[in-house]
Amino acid sequence: MRKIRIICIGKTQEKFIKSGLDLYDKKVKRYCNLEWIIIKAANYTSGNIQQWQEHEAEKIGKLIQSRNMTIFCDESGHQMSSINMADKFTNWANKGYSGFDFFIGGAFGFSEEIKKKANYLLSLSPMTLTHQMIRLLLVEQIYRSFTIIRKEKYHH
Amino acid sequence: MRKIRIICIGKTQEKFIKSGLDLYDKKVKRYCNLEWIIIKAANYTSGNIQQWQEHEAEKIGKLIQSRNMTIFCDESGHQMSSINMADKFTNWANKGYSGFDFFIGGAFGFSEEIKKKANYLLSLSPMTLTHQMIRLLLVEQIYRSFTIIRKEKYHH
Repeated sequence: MRKIRIICIGKTQEKFIKSGLDLYDKKVKRYCNLEWIIIKAANYTSGNIQQWQEHEAEKIGKLIQSRNMTIFCDESGHQMSSINMADKFTNWANKGYSGFDFFIGGAFGFSEEIKKKANYLLSLSPMTLTHQMIRLLLVEQIYRSFTIIRKEKYHH
Repeated sequence: MRKIRIICIGKTQEKFIKSGLDLYDKKVKRYCNLEWIIIKAANYTSGNIQQWQEHEAEKIGKLIQSRNMTIFCDESGHQMSSINMADKFTNWANKGYSGFDFFIGGAFGFSEEIKKKANYLLSLSPMTLTHQMIRLLLVEQIYRSFTIIRKEKYHH
């Protein structure tokens, strides 16, 4: 069974997001080993965006593992349908990676430098979403991918 | 102050979605008059998708008002950034409509026939989302549009 890590920056603040993540966490765990890693966000009260991104990039860098497929959720990334995402999953799984790592940036996104270390940039919507909402959307799409791959009932 | 109606099919089932909608409902109401209308979903235990869509389309049709800008949230619709959505809002507001009506389909989406009655088809993501999750995403984007138009802090 494949391992998926979702690596986020900053705690999940909104209670409703937390409840939604719990719900989909259970659903996804029917299909794979899912781990959530929360990186502490930079201190946004002093410094500037570039410094915050660099601070967070350093921590992100330490979690990147070459044996895992590294996907960054980023507005500049590839957009696709859920069916295409399920296809991508299948292709990546056949490439011999030991797991999938999804990184979700902080409130100010990723530095350009750290983005270069991703194997793939994925955009969940052309619209700007809070980094909290992206967690919810991502885990729902991971769940949906599994149901598409297994031809199960959820997706229509 | 402009009036927005969000018209959905079927109750909001997930508790976390309900909490999220409540949260954004309060936020959006700082800017406009927001009304939620829930249309009873078709009985999905008998009949087929076409019949369910037609049943729901009849109820949708009764709520369409020519004085309002009628927007259907649909996968086949236009995709755009949040900034473009805010621009669209401004343009539509200048066209003399008395309000905006956003329709979100049921679990099986809209019939092709009823879609023709929309002034605009809007897609929130190229990915398939549950019609419950679309409610959350839509109200968050409406809120975001207001903050973009007013040049307020939320959007970055």
